[in-house]
Amino acid sequence: MNYKESKKIWGLIRDSKRILLTLHSSPDPDSAGSALSLYYFLKKLGKEVEVVSFDNVHENLLFAKPSPIKVIEDVSKFDFSKYDLYISTDTQQPGLLSPFRVEIKFPKKLKIVVIDHHPTNLKFGTINLVDSGRVATAEIIYELLKNWEMEIPKIMATYILSGIIGDSGGFRFPGTSARTFEIVSELTKLGADKDMIMFRQYNNNDFGVLKYWGLILRKMKIDRKNKFTYYAINYEEFKKYADYASSSTSGTDVFMNSVLGTNFGIGMTEKKKGWLSVSLRSRTGIDVSKIARALGVGGGGHVFAAGAKFKMPYEEAVEKVLLVAREMSNAKNS
Amino acid sequence: MNYKESKKIWGLIRDSKRILLTLHSSPDPDSAGSALSLYYFLKKLGKEVEVVSFDNVHENLLFAKPSPIKVIEDVSKFDFSKYDLYISTDTQQPGLLSPFRVEIKFPKKLKIVVIDHHPTNLKFGTINLVDSGRVATAEIIYELLKNWEMEIPKIMATYILSGIIGDSGGFRFPGTSARTFEIVSELTKLGADKDMIMFRQYNNNDFGVLKYWGLILRKMKIDRKNKFTYYAINYEEFKKYADYASSSTSGTDVFMNSVLGTNFGIGMTEKKKGWLSVSLRSRTGIDVSKIARALGVGGGGHVFAAGAKFKMPYEEAVEKVLLVAREMSNAKNS
Repeated sequence: MNYKESKKIWGLIRDSKRILLTLHSSPDPDSAGSALSLYYFLKKLGKEVEVVSFDNVHENLLFAKPSPIKVIEDVSKFDFSKYDLYISTDTQQPGLLSPFRVEIKFPKKLKIVVIDHHPTNLKFGTINLVDSGRVATAEIIYELLKNWEMEIPKIMATYILSGIIGDSGGFRFPGTSARTFEIVSELTKLGADKDMIMFRQYNNNDFGVLKYWGLILRKMKIDRKNKFTYYAINYEEFKKYADYASSSTSGTDVFMNSVLGTNFGIGMTEKKKGWLSVSLRSRTGIDVSKIARALGVGGGGHVFAAGAKFKMPYEEAVEKVLLVAREMSNAKNS
Repeated sequence: MNYKESKKIWGLIRDSKRILLTLHSSPDPDSAGSALSLYYFLKKLGKEVEVVSFDNVHENLLFAKPSPIKVIEDVSKFDFSKYDLYISTDTQQPGLLSPFRVEIKFPKKLKIVVIDHHPTNLKFGTINLVDSGRVATAEIIYELLKNWEMEIPKIMATYILSGIIGDSGGFRFPGTSARTFEIVSELTKLGADKDMIMFRQYNNNDFGVLKYWGLILRKMKIDRKNKFTYYAINYEEFKKYADYASSSTSGTDVFMNSVLGTNFGIGMTEKKKGWLSVSLRSRTGIDVSKIARALGVGGGGHVFAAGAKFKMPYEEAVEKVLLVAREMSNAKNS
């Protein structure tokens, strides 16, 4: 499809010399894939390009070595004024560039192009191409390259495919469309290395991650009356697996929306003493973001995946979550 | 692509009145999807068609109700002479029609069309279309319908897609090709209900299945020197979960080829007192069928997935498997 923004974005790229690309915090395959495919494209055009991440980047996301990504810890000290153009990909708002939610003021003369698929994007760019009908931002990048009639070499095809595989849950999530599969077929023909990407994303877990999944399954309970599953892991238990528990494939995603007869699943983890992190996953489309919001400030998310974090002694916090979940679940039933 | 067998198969269908379709034992989505998509096609042509399974069929595989599949327990008493044509799909050899490995003699006058993607197919048909380059037999059915310039209504598209999703591991296995994605895109446009299929295959586990997975992970060990993971479950432990342990998504498939730093994984389960069932999954392409074959009569399979079953007291049997695995692993290293 042809985006009406294509021409304007092309104009800004053509007129720029120094271009900045970024990853969002906790970079995932779509964040890295979108920025890196654009990086190779812009380099080919002869531009000066930098890709910056204000958070650590897992090596599973880096196919070409050495990686062109610069990791810079403190976004507040970063000099945006060096660039003519900033292309922000897969990032809903500037506050999500860094894990520390630093507010950012861009220089007035900096042109900004925002390319994203999150419906909640704040559209902070000079030009905003936000298409929430796409399963991945990388899919939008592909369409732009086609709009501009550009060739897509193997490394770019691989990064675009990696973004699509990441955000579509390996093609399993509902947002994966007929057009997605068409694009994936074309990328595969262009030499995108699907098997390598799949291997890195699904066959590359530390042994500790599986042992942590075992703990989750051991603690998992089912509330058949209110139709949800849940687990709760306290700080002492969590500590043993802390190195693995933030793995890219979390146990919550693997297990909590998969049980017959339930509407949703809740993962509760005391990741910091006295603070409970709550992850919610819907199985049947019941809106779990309502439960997350009811848990207090900072709770929210999407219909299918939401979360919250709050301060309260562990046992009490777990009781509170179950109480809210049961109330919301009954409200839905009545 | 155009199969050279297309025209001959079409001729046999045209000249037949009564046609038989079958599922293989332990029917999976590709077996059901291939047979049922053909069923709706042949009905539309005005043929008398029967679909028979000599094993129970999981309701997750049945999208249209009532199901046209007849379940018949004893294949040895089945009268094949009632039919003019038998189209066998996704079945390597007649012995695999029933879980009891009954030898079958077909009537001489029965015409047989074999359509399959297993490289080890015995080609027992009058016409044999065996394309091992396809991730699923359902993909071959799609190509045939295109060769014959047939319309594919929604229910047929859904069954074909279900077969492809099943045998490609939800598009994750290496055999999934650019052509596969192209076909999937076309099937989605034809109304195939991808999300419903995914939901049934991946979000529909009994709670007991997850608890069984928990047991597997709790027992799972890693042999870092010889680079494999393994678990062993004795009959007393297995008994508690027997209802769930033969679920379509087995724990072996989910976990045993996923650990960083290993070449393969071994699942050992004493499913019957004194008998050890061994499942092997390769992570890096090391040929696990060699280990399966070394375990004795009946052991075998493919490079990435193999199995064996033998009679021996539990502790001794587990020791034997580990010994063979270590030997084969060292042989590979040296």
